[in-house]
Amino acid sequence: MNNTFGRILTVTLFGESHGTLTGAVIDGMPAGIRIDRERIAEEMDRRRAQGMISTPRREADVCEIVSGVYNGYSQGTPLTILIRNTNAVHAEYDREHVIPRPSHGDYSSYVKYSGYSDRRGGGHLSGRLTAPLCAAGAICRMMLEEKGIFIGTHIRQLYDLVDREFADDVKSDIDTLNAMKFAVLDPEVSSEMLDRITQAKAENDSLGGILETCIYGLEAGLGEPWFDSMESLLAHAAFSIPGIKGIEFGNGFGLAGMKGSEANDSFALRNGKVITLTNRSGGINGGITNGMPVVFRTAVRPTPTIAQPQKSVDLTAMKECTLTVSGRHDPAFIHRARAVQDCMSAFVIADLLLQRYGTEYFQGERR
Amino acid sequence: MNNTFGRILTVTLFGESHGTLTGAVIDGMPAGIRIDRERIAEEMDRRRAQGMISTPRREADVCEIVSGVYNGYSQGTPLTILIRNTNAVHAEYDREHVIPRPSHGDYSSYVKYSGYSDRRGGGHLSGRLTAPLCAAGAICRMMLEEKGIFIGTHIRQLYDLVDREFADDVKSDIDTLNAMKFAVLDPEVSSEMLDRITQAKAENDSLGGILETCIYGLEAGLGEPWFDSMESLLAHAAFSIPGIKGIEFGNGFGLAGMKGSEANDSFALRNGKVITLTNRSGGINGGITNGMPVVFRTAVRPTPTIAQPQKSVDLTAMKECTLTVSGRHDPAFIHRARAVQDCMSAFVIADLLLQRYGTEYFQGERR
Amino acid sequence: MNNTFGRILTVTLFGESHGTLTGAVIDGMPAGIRIDRERIAEEMDRRRAQGMISTPRREADVCEIVSGVYNGYSQGTPLTILIRNTNAVHAEYDREHVIPRPSHGDYSSYVKYSGYSDRRGGGHLSGRLTAPLCAAGAICRMMLEEKGIFIGTHIRQLYDLVDREFADDVKSDIDTLNAMKFAVLDPEVSSEMLDRITQAKAENDSLGGILETCIYGLEAGLGEPWFDSMESLLAHAAFSIPGIKGIEFGNGFGLAGMKGSEANDSFALRNGKVITLTNRSGGINGGITNGMPVVFRTAVRPTPTIAQPQKSVDLTAMKECTLTVSGRHDPAFIHRARAVQDCMSAFVIADLLLQRYGTEYFQGERR
Amino acid sequence: MNNTFGRILTVTLFGESHGTLTGAVIDGMPAGIRIDRERIAEEMDRRRAQGMISTPRREADVCEIVSGVYNGYSQGTPLTILIRNTNAVHAEYDREHVIPRPSHGDYSSYVKYSGYSDRRGGGHLSGRLTAPLCAAGAICRMMLEEKGIFIGTHIRQLYDLVDREFADDVKSDIDTLNAMKFAVLDPEVSSEMLDRITQAKAENDSLGGILETCIYGLEAGLGEPWFDSMESLLAHAAFSIPGIKGIEFGNGFGLAGMKGSEANDSFALRNGKVITLTNRSGGINGGITNGMPVVFRTAVRPTPTIAQPQKSVDLTAMKECTLTVSGRHDPAFIHRARAVQDCMSAFVIADLLLQRYGTEYFQGERR
Repeated sequence: MNNTFGRILTVTLFGESHGTLTGAVIDGMPAGIRIDRERIAEEMDRRRAQGMISTPRREADVCEIVSGVYNGYSQGTPLTILIRNTNAVHAEYDREHVIPRPSHGDYSSYVKYSGYSDRRGGGHLSGRLTAPLCAAGAICRMMLEEKGIFIGTHIRQLYDLVDREFADDVKSDIDTLNAMKFAVLDPEVSSEMLDRITQAKAENDSLGGILETCIYGLEAGLGEPWFDSMESLLAHAAFSIPGIKGIEFGNGFGLAGMKGSEANDSFALRNGKVITLTNRSGGINGGITNGMPVVFRTAVRPTPTIAQPQKSVDLTAMKECTLTVSGRHDPAFIHRARAVQDCMSAFVIADLLLQRYGTEYFQGERR
Repeated sequence: MNNTFGRILTVTLFGESHGTLTGAVIDGMPAGIRIDRERIAEEMDRRRAQGMISTPRREADVCEIVSGVYNGYSQGTPLTILIRNTNAVHAEYDREHVIPRPSHGDYSSYVKYSGYSDRRGGGHLSGRLTAPLCAAGAICRMMLEEKGIFIGTHIRQLYDLVDREFADDVKSDIDTLNAMKFAVLDPEVSSEMLDRITQAKAENDSLGGILETCIYGLEAGLGEPWFDSMESLLAHAAFSIPGIKGIEFGNGFGLAGMKGSEANDSFALRNGKVITLTNRSGGINGGITNGMPVVFRTAVRPTPTIAQPQKSVDLTAMKECTLTVSGRHDPAFIHRARAVQDCMSAFVIADLLLQRYGTEYFQGERR
Repeated sequence: MNNTFGRILTVTLFGESHGTLTGAVIDGMPAGIRIDRERIAEEMDRRRAQGMISTPRREADVCEIVSGVYNGYSQGTPLTILIRNTNAVHAEYDREHVIPRPSHGDYSSYVKYSGYSDRRGGGHLSGRLTAPLCAAGAICRMMLEEKGIFIGTHIRQLYDLVDREFADDVKSDIDTLNAMKFAVLDPEVSSEMLDRITQAKAENDSLGGILETCIYGLEAGLGEPWFDSMESLLAHAAFSIPGIKGIEFGNGFGLAGMKGSEANDSFALRNGKVITLTNRSGGINGGITNGMPVVFRTAVRPTPTIAQPQKSVDLTAMKECTLTVSGRHDPAFIHRARAVQDCMSAFVIADLLLQRYGTEYFQGERR
Repeated sequence: MNNTFGRILTVTLFGESHGTLTGAVIDGMPAGIRIDRERIAEEMDRRRAQGMISTPRREADVCEIVSGVYNGYSQGTPLTILIRNTNAVHAEYDREHVIPRPSHGDYSSYVKYSGYSDRRGGGHLSGRLTAPLCAAGAICRMMLEEKGIFIGTHIRQLYDLVDREFADDVKSDIDTLNAMKFAVLDPEVSSEMLDRITQAKAENDSLGGILETCIYGLEAGLGEPWFDSMESLLAHAAFSIPGIKGIEFGNGFGLAGMKGSEANDSFALRNGKVITLTNRSGGINGGITNGMPVVFRTAVRPTPTIAQPQKSVDLTAMKECTLTVSGRHDPAFIHRARAVQDCMSAFVIADLLLQRYGTEYFQGERR
């Protein structure tokens, strides 16, 4: 199921950067979920290219829901989203010789598909396809919020700049982030980061960073020991996002330098509820949520496509060459990947809740 | 499919720490694969508790293959492995009050299973179940080695100690590691690490670390864009191993502090073959292998079970308390997790090759 | 995966009768398969409403391929097909009171989806959705024909009329059927059947029948013992087609009245190839093909929607009532279901071949 | 997932006729289900070889539950069942030359597995493996009965003899059947059938027949339109049982000879509940249950292994020959298949209910 993800709730992704459209089919959605189109548009907006810090390719990203919704509510049947490509500039990419961009999927997909795939703009391997993922995720987020589950992601690090950690009142931080387009908690760091990106753009270069995500309001008992551990599922989802090269839960790699006595999270009672005094495990023990916020960080590589001359190989002539790309690219995509990260996480959680409580639990009242 | 992993090649895991046995069913294995029992025993041996640096619980780990193998070859039907629990000391764990160990799955699984699961030794959430995984993985490794694919993992970091990186001749390092029980490339660092573990044990404490895995000999074109990216699949598998809390591919989190011009891997030709001059992407671009070695690191937490008094909650009485565990535990399990990491990786790769080339490709000749 | 079918090759189905469109995503298709749009149109044409014997709703069924195909060849990425609904007459179906049609999915789906689904024309439960299935199947049939596998279906029975059996030269019969719109081998029976349908239409009634399908050119060894038996997979696919209520392989229910000595198919050699002298098992033994043609029959119920007064229940008022439907309906759909049966079978076989030989086997040559 | 079936509730089957054991892993079972070993033994007993009408191979079929159950309740973790082979007579089957039995899976599996599979007693393709399926199904039946769902199957036809239909009070018939070893409703027909089998045995022949199954107490709304229609799932399960060659729902093939006005089931109200006045659709409309009993029939072929000389091919020498089998075989297996049919149906229904209501719905109370 290469382009289908999920078990009870599934998303099937399709489309190419310079084809007619991109889209997704969401199946397994209970009937009677109110589909708020403004909320979807908002989520789409979070991942859209912005001002100076993004590619000049600006897509309207109008999200057509062509099946599965009737009179504003989910029907319980496959919900299909289409997003037309309106601003693909075809001339920029067509080339006689196949010269892969370093660290992009150009070469590996050329081999995989024996040269039959549409290479323009990366074809199926394009960040464009994260648009329907965000639309799908927006719907999941609405479902989760009805059940008191909220998700937020901030840019914890951009190149050398670091945002502050989540505060103890993590719900308040999540609300703040969800109202932001450029999701950084510390306003000063935020404006420095914007400068850094603008500067990278001027240098025809790009920047990487780290996203930090928090899922708040999860009950204990979600996720499985072994193959469907909460970490396995969230990581599987995260690495589906182009450019993610690392993930860590709780203190993550930091735990490698700790003793058990330093790393363990003691249990305690607060208002009759079991909590942990610290959250170095990131809300997950034995692959299963423990009721604390689930916290993880993902490493985002700098955009591989940069407008500097780079060494590559002409695969048609099979000789080494220098490649200078002139297309429209993002000097960083971490601020856009953030929206996708929120959405993929929402998808995983919604699927797990459907498994635990069944379709009936989320379904609207008989009418 | 909570306890089943894989698409064409699948493994189904079962058993409990203090039950009769643990085991696994491997399905989708082509017929005619030679099953070398010594090789399986060797792999099992790598994950077995060792000398002073492991739990005093010593299990023979005799691996019975009770279906799917005939006259030394796989039949092409489900291959079932059983491993008896022979050395479970029951008295150590039985308790009237449910008091979860901090950072262990005790609490989260208690909630998940409404208190019906066998808590002795962690029940189904026990490292014991990695034994059948290693047996399954050993068979996959044999399949892969026939096709020139080799996997090796070393302890890159233990608490504060760091092993050297993989050398350029990574195949030679892999061979070296596969002959070692305690997999550290630098002999001096190795003995320091052993000391550190012994010392932690003396302090009733435990240590974490980082594993580094290399998959050598992979062709370009394996893995999928989006949901079944090579990173997604390997991460899904890695987080199935108890105690793994982070994973990064290539330079991973290091890429967050880089510019595109610093992070990109230039393409070049060597003997008519496309290579990259550096391997900061860890052999994967766009979710698909590019023909370079796949390299990743996983963060291993310190064993949560330690013999020091810790704060917890008595779930039966619902009051806070102090827990002092007296069972037999590992002061570190990173050296044992290493074998499991090799095996889970082998499983993922074998499954992908079966998808690309079909069962027929691996099947023995008609006889 | 309610609306996704297949393991390596998958189809995801979406849309509603009176919504914007219907469509399907086909994933797992190898790259480099030539996509012949005329051949797809031909297949679509076979299931399209015809002359007097079908519903007056005539849809152009223009099949847009909006992803996964580039320059006439499959890209190896998800192939998406959209078919616009252009001739939905909305007024015919809208009603204040929910009164389910007897033996249609109206009532069961109303309960299932708590009343949120679009009931116009059956919504998601409409024969309209077989159009994208036929488009998907047409592509699979092209793949199979390249490997010497041909599929044909005829109307073996319509109400009281019976077509002749497949001849020994089954390949020739298949070719004949594939050139026909109304697939009956005996021309006389064919015209009688057409008359019977016309007559049923005049009586505001509908007719059922039996389809017989033959898959020719299959090698021995496809299908699995137990859960993925060839019969299980073909039956799963067949019962996905609306209105199919029975399936039998080889002599099927006829075997119930036989002794083993009467039912068994003796093995023999012909030109060095193992064959069976009879084919009462329908080409399948132990769930696995034996190299003989796979033959099965499916029972097609009469169209439930008829223009006669029928007893039903007004679900809004919860009282019994008489329902007279005035929409546009098929007096029989067996001649249309035949195209869908061919296509679903092609899908199952293509998926199994991909599992046995891998994607690489079908993929076009590197270019 | 060749040997795994189900979506939320899964069963993985393994073993061979003359190997150490057969077994199954049931995963996805909620915690806290009481596991009544006597009830399992009872179910096993129904499929066990009986008196004169079955093979002289008598297996104790002792069912060991080696994981997933603790203190008599399911743990919520994989439940593993092992059944030792104790009475395999090895000498009977071993042969130098491979000569497949007509209409058995010998030939097709020989090709599939390139000759590597254990051919003794059919190896993995042996009726022995239905024993663990019955154990698994027994547990599902207990789950369903707690929710008011009951399943019963009778031998509707044996060769030329026909049992009476299910009475209107179908629940009472189901209770009667579940107390019987040889499940025939009419006592006179029952004794005639037993005679017929004894006679077939004396003639070294075997007999086929038809099973009829009823699932009582199902709510409306289970099953899916399209690929996971109730018919698709039940048929998939039924054709997993060796020797089943046909299935029909409600009037099934009888619908082929009907007009819509004859076939449709009118809706009516009884005690405020929607029912249908007839049940020719077998309780399923549009792939979804309508609240009436689900009724279907399956065609069971005569046992292919008979002790008469039959034409076959010596695959080792590649020449035609005559085969006379001397092993121990069933003159009919329909009375044994009946237990398996009940169990496979229970499995499908339990899986669907878990999807609709979630694990939590079935799980035992917190303790």
